[in-house]
Amino acid sequence: MEELLNSTAGDVTQLKYALDTFYFLVCGALVMWMAAGFAMLEAGLVRAKNTTEILTKNIALYAISCTMYLVSGYAIMYGGEYLLSGITGDGFTGAEEPATYAPSADFFFQVVFVATAMSIVSGAVAERMKLWAFLAFAVVMTGVIYPLEGSWTWGGNDVFGMYNLGDLGFSDFAGSGIVHMAGAAAALAGVLVLGARKGKYAKNGAVNAIPGANLPLATLGTFVLWLGWFGFNGGSVLATSDVENSNSVAVVFMNTNAAAAGGVVAALIVARLLFGKADLTMTLNGALAGLVAITAEPSTPTALQATLFGAIGGTLVVFSILALDKAKIDDPVGAISVHGVVGLLGLLLVPVTNGEVTFSGQIIGALTIFGWVFVASLVVWLAIKAVMGVRVSEEEEYEGVDLSECGMEAYPEFTSAK
Amino acid sequence: MEELLNSTAGDVTQLKYALDTFYFLVCGALVMWMAAGFAMLEAGLVRAKNTTEILTKNIALYAISCTMYLVSGYAIMYGGEYLLSGITGDGFTGAEEPATYAPSADFFFQVVFVATAMSIVSGAVAERMKLWAFLAFAVVMTGVIYPLEGSWTWGGNDVFGMYNLGDLGFSDFAGSGIVHMAGAAAALAGVLVLGARKGKYAKNGAVNAIPGANLPLATLGTFVLWLGWFGFNGGSVLATSDVENSNSVAVVFMNTNAAAAGGVVAALIVARLLFGKADLTMTLNGALAGLVAITAEPSTPTALQATLFGAIGGTLVVFSILALDKAKIDDPVGAISVHGVVGLLGLLLVPVTNGEVTFSGQIIGALTIFGWVFVASLVVWLAIKAVMGVRVSEEEEYEGVDLSECGMEAYPEFTSAK
Amino acid sequence: MEELLNSTAGDVTQLKYALDTFYFLVCGALVMWMAAGFAMLEAGLVRAKNTTEILTKNIALYAISCTMYLVSGYAIMYGGEYLLSGITGDGFTGAEEPATYAPSADFFFQVVFVATAMSIVSGAVAERMKLWAFLAFAVVMTGVIYPLEGSWTWGGNDVFGMYNLGDLGFSDFAGSGIVHMAGAAAALAGVLVLGARKGKYAKNGAVNAIPGANLPLATLGTFVLWLGWFGFNGGSVLATSDVENSNSVAVVFMNTNAAAAGGVVAALIVARLLFGKADLTMTLNGALAGLVAITAEPSTPTALQATLFGAIGGTLVVFSILALDKAKIDDPVGAISVHGVVGLLGLLLVPVTNGEVTFSGQIIGALTIFGWVFVASLVVWLAIKAVMGVRVSEEEEYEGVDLSECGMEAYPEFTSAK
Repeated sequence: MEELLNSTAGDVTQLKYALDTFYFLVCGALVMWMAAGFAMLEAGLVRAKNTTEILTKNIALYAISCTMYLVSGYAIMYGGEYLLSGITGDGFTGAEEPATYAPSADFFFQVVFVATAMSIVSGAVAERMKLWAFLAFAVVMTGVIYPLEGSWTWGGNDVFGMYNLGDLGFSDFAGSGIVHMAGAAAALAGVLVLGARKGKYAKNGAVNAIPGANLPLATLGTFVLWLGWFGFNGGSVLATSDVENSNSVAVVFMNTNAAAAGGVVAALIVARLLFGKADLTMTLNGALAGLVAITAEPSTPTALQATLFGAIGGTLVVFSILALDKAKIDDPVGAISVHGVVGLLGLLLVPVTNGEVTFSGQIIGALTIFGWVFVASLVVWLAIKAVMGVRVSEEEEYEGVDLSECGMEAYPEFTSAK
Repeated sequence: MEELLNSTAGDVTQLKYALDTFYFLVCGALVMWMAAGFAMLEAGLVRAKNTTEILTKNIALYAISCTMYLVSGYAIMYGGEYLLSGITGDGFTGAEEPATYAPSADFFFQVVFVATAMSIVSGAVAERMKLWAFLAFAVVMTGVIYPLEGSWTWGGNDVFGMYNLGDLGFSDFAGSGIVHMAGAAAALAGVLVLGARKGKYAKNGAVNAIPGANLPLATLGTFVLWLGWFGFNGGSVLATSDVENSNSVAVVFMNTNAAAAGGVVAALIVARLLFGKADLTMTLNGALAGLVAITAEPSTPTALQATLFGAIGGTLVVFSILALDKAKIDDPVGAISVHGVVGLLGLLLVPVTNGEVTFSGQIIGALTIFGWVFVASLVVWLAIKAVMGVRVSEEEEYEGVDLSECGMEAYPEFTSAK
Repeated sequence: MEELLNSTAGDVTQLKYALDTFYFLVCGALVMWMAAGFAMLEAGLVRAKNTTEILTKNIALYAISCTMYLVSGYAIMYGGEYLLSGITGDGFTGAEEPATYAPSADFFFQVVFVATAMSIVSGAVAERMKLWAFLAFAVVMTGVIYPLEGSWTWGGNDVFGMYNLGDLGFSDFAGSGIVHMAGAAAALAGVLVLGARKGKYAKNGAVNAIPGANLPLATLGTFVLWLGWFGFNGGSVLATSDVENSNSVAVVFMNTNAAAAGGVVAALIVARLLFGKADLTMTLNGALAGLVAITAEPSTPTALQATLFGAIGGTLVVFSILALDKAKIDDPVGAISVHGVVGLLGLLLVPVTNGEVTFSGQIIGALTIFGWVFVASLVVWLAIKAVMGVRVSEEEEYEGVDLSECGMEAYPEFTSAK
């Protein structure tokens, strides 16, 4: 009987390990799917002549993220070995204590977050950047800039040995700031170095709308991101094999969905009031804004609060997009507004429902993340500009970057003139 | 040793809770994904000039469904609090007995069903309805009409205090009737109030085919729905943490897939016999018909029976689509046939393999669901018509609802003339 | 106390069964999703006038695969009853020992593999084959040719009673050879019988590029396949409910992702060096090549090795596509290179990290699989050619197979001339 008890207890420990690992893998696969979402969203929102290039960028940045995080990123962020050379079926070599889930599941889940951060940059610099300049930036961003920032937040390290964000009351559950605002900060630096697309801002101050070529694709991308976000936020509970964690994961799924819904409804109504029409692209951005807004703390709000937080995000994003255009910051897909401005909102909403978190901690955290990622990115963008240039020629921009960068059209039979 | 036994037994209880909750969340996420499927299916089957609007409708109806079910729907259907204000990591406040899975996972799973019912309406009224009239209907449908119907079926309440469907031998496992036929009933009422598209039915009695603008998108939507349906049916077992339920979930996955396959093969062959060609849109509807047909009882048939039931659905849907066109009921995507006619078929097939269910119970159930949803919807559609109108102007219809309702084209570079 | 112990131990056994079953179902659903991936990939890479037909082919072949595997395939491959007539919630009738997961989950997981093998054929014969000839081949391939091959490998039977591949040191974890190279062998036989598309190879020896009509669709398809591959490889561990298997599943997810990433980076760079541009279609094929390359053994390499193996695959696929064009083997989507040439590479890479596998075993296995599938397919293709013909008329090919086979255009409003 004692033998049976011991083997049963051992089986239970193994089952918990197995369930938590499987949960991580499912959530990680969902976050990987967000790479497809960004690709479709961005491809739908640019003009036909710049579509092949943005698709290439998106799949390439995902691959670079995975490779660079393996090469250096994971080690910078969480310690452990570079190249993950020791990772095998038995986990990382030299782990100090028994893991409660498979180490490689942890790597898999973390690596897809890196790619998310990098995807955000892609849309903002669309339609005028050199492809290889972008990919060079991706190497540095995913190999160093994001991991160092992550080491201060989720990794728990002191910021340059000076202060500890966690000790200051900073919390960012799944990354409104750590992932989304960080991506937006890198994007903003890139856009400032790059400048606006030709023809976007007229000399008389008018802002010309440049409509996306394929709105079903953009809508699909938004739905893909919405689905993937369940993994993004849901997996960030980091365990699900007991009642408390399980409840938390369930609340996170429910609230993530509620916030996106709130964002849709709010953006739809705000756009209707401002423009007199049901603006689909604003509505899509409303969904994403709702998702970003809840990401910093999806586990403590009630479902109704989550809906309201999402609605605030969906409202904010419309005004932010308009404001950035006023400031002549040209972001073809609205990424800086969705992920940056609303990412900051997400951080600031945390203390409303989570008493352990302070506004001051959130503000210091936001400044730290934004400051580091923006400045580091700016330096890298300027270095790339100096070495190889970041912007295609005027003629290439006019013809479309598909021909100059990729040598092929995305829709050769649908568009009669470029 | 007793301590270890007690803690082990406690862990096992928690693990069952955790596995059942995770299963619900995965299935719920798959059903949420069906919202993308409906959006793509419908966007592919309408003309280019009405694409932006149907995309807007689809994402908005999903968001409205989630919000209204939170506001009132869930409480009407299953009791509990309006606004779910008490739902937190510890579950609903005031729950009477310990839950066997997270209460918010239950809400999440249920809410995506509401959206499915509402999505069905969207396609049938495409290309001529006012967007805001549709959204107003969505508020009532998802906040009251569907939840009340659901309270009589899955909620177990008496129908207006008069009779109990369960007691009469009614059963609808995952919602051939409760979700799909209900959606189709609301759609039919809408179509009757709205009328056919201009040019669909010629004065000489000819039925003009109005081809969809983007068949890859419609095909993608069908695959998305097929995938999502594993969650729709598979999650409806409601538990998976023991051998019996686990076997049931597995059979449901296998049979759901088999029925869809049967529907494809049957529709392909029937269309070939009738029209002489391999008709893709009929084939897609065949897949969906197979899925709807098995949804009322996917757990008791053998895989071969499931294939045959799907094939019956796939055959029926072709003739139903032709018949509705004869009756001048204009349903651009065939939603009333797929979800309504085949939904009824699904209900009637249940007693063939499930001895606990009676034909009379199924018929009474079908009449109850259809009667309530159709009549209530008709009243609401007529009220909306009286207040704000349901149909766009002839000129707007000719120009496309994208411009009148959304102010933007879905494919501005692909279509030279509207 | 003894009672509690016994019931707890029983619950644990059931939980393991439930978790393994759920894992199979989730992985199976992901593999089913690959059917959508192949459909989108192929639809994006053909010309607009051949799009409806390839969509029809893809959904029909999936349905035929599911039905034929039920009718005969599963029984040929693994024994058990034809028609699976006895499968119910209690599992297959007549199972000899208690299963450790639901039998119908096993069927579900296996059946989606059949469809994957068949999908590979579809792309290679695109743009000139008769639809019904293709579907006739699909019936034989999925009902007999693949299952017999599978019975020698995963089924463990002797090859025609002569030799046993497993005894010879052959191993193919998830099917680089058993599924992918097998599909490519059938495709190659079909392409040889069918001949090249008109205009592909000029009389002066030039190879004319025939660009795909919709690259976002092809990119989406690649991402879908990438996601689905986690189920394809991850599910092939066949269990996840203890630490050892759980670690193995996690490593497989991580390595599958890493190999795809390696394939992207390599193909992007190789194409840049060869063609001077970032070639999107080569990059997409690089991702798929990375995935195929790791599929024969995703559990023993380190993540870095997996990245390198993927990169070798991504490099090889570019040269293979060029070589096949030199040999005038016309494969519009590169399927023979991706799945056949790189599938062989995958088999040959296994002994590098798995000491229990021999090169000689891999070579004999590869010859056996290729020899059987190629010869059997050739016979079937020739028989179909004799009976009903395999190729559409020149005029039909010029007009596009959409009109001749399906009677409808995929994009009626986007393409002004066929």
